[in-house]
Amino acid sequence: MTRSNLNVLLIGGGFMGKAHSLAYATAPIATDLGLSVTRKVLVDNNAEIAVAAAAQLGWEESATDWRAAVTRDDIDIVDICTPPHMHREIAMAAMAAGKHVFCEKPLSNDVAEATEMADAAQAAGVVTQVGFNYRHTPAVVFTKKLLDEGRLGVPLQFRASYLQETGFLATDPNRWRARKSTGGSGAAGDIGSHIIEIAEYLLGDIVSVSALLRSKAPGYGTGWAEESVRLGDDLIDDGGVWLARFANGTIGTFACNTFALGRKNRVYFELDVTRAATQFDWNEREEFRVAYNDEEPDHRGFRVIHTGPEHPGGWWKLAGLGTGYVEVSALQFQAFLSAIASGTQTSPSFVEALHVQRVIDAVTRSAEGGQWIDVQS
Amino acid sequence: MTRSNLNVLLIGGGFMGKAHSLAYATAPIATDLGLSVTRKVLVDNNAEIAVAAAAQLGWEESATDWRAAVTRDDIDIVDICTPPHMHREIAMAAMAAGKHVFCEKPLSNDVAEATEMADAAQAAGVVTQVGFNYRHTPAVVFTKKLLDEGRLGVPLQFRASYLQETGFLATDPNRWRARKSTGGSGAAGDIGSHIIEIAEYLLGDIVSVSALLRSKAPGYGTGWAEESVRLGDDLIDDGGVWLARFANGTIGTFACNTFALGRKNRVYFELDVTRAATQFDWNEREEFRVAYNDEEPDHRGFRVIHTGPEHPGGWWKLAGLGTGYVEVSALQFQAFLSAIASGTQTSPSFVEALHVQRVIDAVTRSAEGGQWIDVQS
Amino acid sequence: MTRSNLNVLLIGGGFMGKAHSLAYATAPIATDLGLSVTRKVLVDNNAEIAVAAAAQLGWEESATDWRAAVTRDDIDIVDICTPPHMHREIAMAAMAAGKHVFCEKPLSNDVAEATEMADAAQAAGVVTQVGFNYRHTPAVVFTKKLLDEGRLGVPLQFRASYLQETGFLATDPNRWRARKSTGGSGAAGDIGSHIIEIAEYLLGDIVSVSALLRSKAPGYGTGWAEESVRLGDDLIDDGGVWLARFANGTIGTFACNTFALGRKNRVYFELDVTRAATQFDWNEREEFRVAYNDEEPDHRGFRVIHTGPEHPGGWWKLAGLGTGYVEVSALQFQAFLSAIASGTQTSPSFVEALHVQRVIDAVTRSAEGGQWIDVQS
Amino acid sequence: MTRSNLNVLLIGGGFMGKAHSLAYATAPIATDLGLSVTRKVLVDNNAEIAVAAAAQLGWEESATDWRAAVTRDDIDIVDICTPPHMHREIAMAAMAAGKHVFCEKPLSNDVAEATEMADAAQAAGVVTQVGFNYRHTPAVVFTKKLLDEGRLGVPLQFRASYLQETGFLATDPNRWRARKSTGGSGAAGDIGSHIIEIAEYLLGDIVSVSALLRSKAPGYGTGWAEESVRLGDDLIDDGGVWLARFANGTIGTFACNTFALGRKNRVYFELDVTRAATQFDWNEREEFRVAYNDEEPDHRGFRVIHTGPEHPGGWWKLAGLGTGYVEVSALQFQAFLSAIASGTQTSPSFVEALHVQRVIDAVTRSAEGGQWIDVQS
Repeated sequence: MTRSNLNVLLIGGGFMGKAHSLAYATAPIATDLGLSVTRKVLVDNNAEIAVAAAAQLGWEESATDWRAAVTRDDIDIVDICTPPHMHREIAMAAMAAGKHVFCEKPLSNDVAEATEMADAAQAAGVVTQVGFNYRHTPAVVFTKKLLDEGRLGVPLQFRASYLQETGFLATDPNRWRARKSTGGSGAAGDIGSHIIEIAEYLLGDIVSVSALLRSKAPGYGTGWAEESVRLGDDLIDDGGVWLARFANGTIGTFACNTFALGRKNRVYFELDVTRAATQFDWNEREEFRVAYNDEEPDHRGFRVIHTGPEHPGGWWKLAGLGTGYVEVSALQFQAFLSAIASGTQTSPSFVEALHVQRVIDAVTRSAEGGQWIDVQS
Repeated sequence: MTRSNLNVLLIGGGFMGKAHSLAYATAPIATDLGLSVTRKVLVDNNAEIAVAAAAQLGWEESATDWRAAVTRDDIDIVDICTPPHMHREIAMAAMAAGKHVFCEKPLSNDVAEATEMADAAQAAGVVTQVGFNYRHTPAVVFTKKLLDEGRLGVPLQFRASYLQETGFLATDPNRWRARKSTGGSGAAGDIGSHIIEIAEYLLGDIVSVSALLRSKAPGYGTGWAEESVRLGDDLIDDGGVWLARFANGTIGTFACNTFALGRKNRVYFELDVTRAATQFDWNEREEFRVAYNDEEPDHRGFRVIHTGPEHPGGWWKLAGLGTGYVEVSALQFQAFLSAIASGTQTSPSFVEALHVQRVIDAVTRSAEGGQWIDVQS
Repeated sequence: MTRSNLNVLLIGGGFMGKAHSLAYATAPIATDLGLSVTRKVLVDNNAEIAVAAAAQLGWEESATDWRAAVTRDDIDIVDICTPPHMHREIAMAAMAAGKHVFCEKPLSNDVAEATEMADAAQAAGVVTQVGFNYRHTPAVVFTKKLLDEGRLGVPLQFRASYLQETGFLATDPNRWRARKSTGGSGAAGDIGSHIIEIAEYLLGDIVSVSALLRSKAPGYGTGWAEESVRLGDDLIDDGGVWLARFANGTIGTFACNTFALGRKNRVYFELDVTRAATQFDWNEREEFRVAYNDEEPDHRGFRVIHTGPEHPGGWWKLAGLGTGYVEVSALQFQAFLSAIASGTQTSPSFVEALHVQRVIDAVTRSAEGGQWIDVQS
Repeated sequence: MTRSNLNVLLIGGGFMGKAHSLAYATAPIATDLGLSVTRKVLVDNNAEIAVAAAAQLGWEESATDWRAAVTRDDIDIVDICTPPHMHREIAMAAMAAGKHVFCEKPLSNDVAEATEMADAAQAAGVVTQVGFNYRHTPAVVFTKKLLDEGRLGVPLQFRASYLQETGFLATDPNRWRARKSTGGSGAAGDIGSHIIEIAEYLLGDIVSVSALLRSKAPGYGTGWAEESVRLGDDLIDDGGVWLARFANGTIGTFACNTFALGRKNRVYFELDVTRAATQFDWNEREEFRVAYNDEEPDHRGFRVIHTGPEHPGGWWKLAGLGTGYVEVSALQFQAFLSAIASGTQTSPSFVEALHVQRVIDAVTRSAEGGQWIDVQS
């Protein structure tokens, strides 16, 4: 019995390139997908980085010209790990060449670009997926499963946050994430997009939002940036809060920022449903927490359930062995690779990610205009 | 050396009457206030309850007519533990009789009443305090102290919630808290008021809000109430979410509801400041959590500090002995009694509670109108 | 309907005197015991302390001669809050005078004294109780209830610790707790006795132990004390570890010390039973944690149940309001007062505390001899 | 610049074979080791498993005869993932062939075999390492670093446990882990060895132990096994507790079992040192917890530090991304591979693992004889 093989082209030799390399190396081992993956070509526009990254990350070749690489016959998958302002151009070329495309989040920095990409994906009929990795955590997928089965009841209130302290700790004020011209949609797009995507994955479409966004002054201790500084310095919004109404009636709060000291990287949500409540914390990501309504009175409370082989994505033989970034990245790519192998679609696709982009856009416009904004449907 | 003594009249022999009785019994023991307190008269309009409650809760006399009681010469303090729609009338009479007044929260069910009460308090020159007990928790008071000392920096983002499951578990659908005509301001006023008050205590005035409020259908499993059911049944809003802008520039999210399964009684907040971040959870109320910016790189993170004798209100000889509802209630009444003894004012007074009422009012109007509402200043 | 009243004589105006005063003030309010309690006389051999403590703690009279006080006709209860080396003499006199006796733990500093006290208690027929307060925590009592009902199965393994950092922080090296001549049984007797008592309360008699005890050098940073320093300085053992075999087959580990930095006051245990496992942490004392065997495979894990009105001792109307040191002390004294009122016995009595003393004694002898020691039965 | 390459032979296509395959796939990617690793041959005595495992886990070849494989010229590393009773024979053959050997824990089922292996390792001069993976967790390594730097002071008391519920959940009573003839050293050897090894890694040699071991009756609910059942059924000890004295004066408690419901896989320890205390929980493995003595009085308490790039082994760019089983396995193999590449030794080697085996042996003999047993030095 021979296994089919998929050849990958990775564009971007930075942190995400490394994370995806680890995922390609582990996904087919962790669960038997009936296929193998070859890390074929790694592209970075910096030749030195390209060569070094290919060697360390286990890619057969390195290159600097992504345009030439995306049309190679021996490439099945194009994986885009560049800053978001480059996503559209690369993805369009890759889809035009008939490649399956994995693209890091956010899909783009604006809705127009994202729309173009989603339309092209549908026209091309290739498999597309966007790197919203946290939603692939077994505890999140299990929440979705229980919601879909009706076990939790009707969703009522959702509260989410994504907090980092990276804004304080970054030593390079000119990094692309801090600049509007490159980072585009700011913290709301960069990290807020993850909790929007999780929310829509679990609860369906968000239909309107009311938001506040802010730019902290660069450096420590002086509060918010003056408007002049913010614009003159091309500063991105590094935090915000918003309310959301969902199509299914759920109401929710969202908060994100990169100036939350002590929060290294915390994706968090609480969900109140009519028959239960759940809680998820990426920093305790192995724990699915749920409280049910129909318990004995003296046994009511949250259950702390370590996800394991009994749960979606549980490929260790034992709960409690430990789910890290690699494990969740592998789960993300297992979804992508399996979809390609089976000729189905996966999630979140470019089309789903487009809706997330529309919510980010509504958040931005709501913050600017000081009013509720309907999400474009 | 003789101690001065304060005679108290308590109105309302229910749960709060018991809680306050415990506080009067413990406050002067816990810390030497240089005074004693006599539980003089307990009034309840139900004579049987009045007699039984006075006997159990340690009051010298019981009565059913609060109007007669509030003017008694031997009463120094009138303590109002009735549902909120009765607050105004009793408080006005007590202040007119020159009594110091402790009133349970919310101060009232609407701004007009609350304004009248705050104005009368200022005119009467008596000591007034409103029962926002949670803010007296040592960890909260210590947060305030560090903020005031400038140690934490400039506040940026605040996220608070107050969650209960009482709405699911209540067996009497006609209880006053569930009815608009008696419970008035709903969950936002009943429990949301606590997190608004803590927010304004720590961060100063909230200046505008954007809100969503909802009424869950009575009973289990059917989601939100139809509008007709809600009005016909005089149903109160039992949950909501709102954004707030503070005068000092802080932005925040708030959430409250009484349908959060597994959340028995959870007051929670997170605060990101430019030099630090803090977190408070009533369910871990002995823990003050703070992360500072100026730590060694490999020692950055939250500190979990059990409050004790080194902190405000720490009257046990050892941290970790245990801070419960009685301890925090006693701290609340120590503030009140000390202010009377020393002839100063205390906090939160009727005037401060009026501002909380204005925020509740703005939240309600924002939810009705679907727009940002400025808080009356 | 008149209530019976009990008059109390308290001996010892220090920390425990205050804690007990708070308990007497709250116990009859918290739950209707059908009786009232009068704080009649507070005795301290230091007259100044006696007067000041009586005034602050709400006692009608103060005195300095406990011998005269214990025979007063108007005293029903003698409450002993002195260091342990004085327990025997006072308790014997009080029981001889026909008084009910509440005595702080440990019952004594050695088995001979404790035996004399337990024998006298049985002969006198009075109600005796020893101040093992932590076992009255609702989560602990609920564990006992479930064990007794057979719901948890057969106990297998028990792991307990009691940790403090008081040894590091104490500024007075001559305090009675640090000296063998006054503190007697050391950390094993002072704090270890609590976890021994909880263990025997839940699981029955300990039958043999193997132990190691140590004295830390005074001050910081130099490890264990030299043997010469230890004896010359009359130093007490400030920490130890031991194994225990129980009559019912359970095996267990115990650890205690007063040099555990960061542990303000942490009583902790884990219990593995054939059908379930439980966990208790005094620093999260409102949480009863239990994992059952007979759960759905994807719902296995610990439940975190906030104790409330559904549980033993739950006198707040709502779980999550907060259980502190006062609440648990009040529960402890409710047990004692109710036993007196109803003419029954309570727990832990002098007889039960004697067995704890025998375990402490076996621990000490095992540590000295380096071998397993059977507990005197 | 060409990279050196190491060819691996893996023996055992079960769970550990998969875990090691993931580690070989990720270790060289996660950190640039300057080398590559080829998964050359996977051996399993079951041919079907061998073929399937090689295909899924990414090995170039499969085989069934380990004896033939270990002498192949193109093999650099022999990795032993068989049950422990096969370790000695394979390891001896591999070392005789001059191969570097990675062997799963425990090194063997008895001291004699382990001694032979350790002696051979020293004679052969190859690199050996034993699969005590948990000690490679960044938070554990950082604890070791701070201890070595003297920052934490002199160790005083150590408390460790390793708990699982696998004994309850296993459906096959005849699996090798449950049988003395195959599983050998029981739970103390299987999981207890991990906490012994961590203890010796952090604190140096254990010199004597006092222990209790027990076999639970097969199935649910009936407590300990009768002695006859235990021997007749070749039942292994599935749990135990022991005290330990360390050469450096530290005293400690250990507990392990496989019947701890709710504990999926929990390695835990607390360490009290003269200047600090630390805590580690594998279920919160990203958190390094430390409390220092020299803090401001109102800022004393545990710090919760998420390990990241500032800490040993932190190869993600951000703390909080997530450390799972794969990440820690990769760190374990980075140590092994780097030692081979640099011609140095690694840890824990066969020699170090031999001492762990001697402690296990002393635990077993202490449990049998009911007395303290000195560990063979």
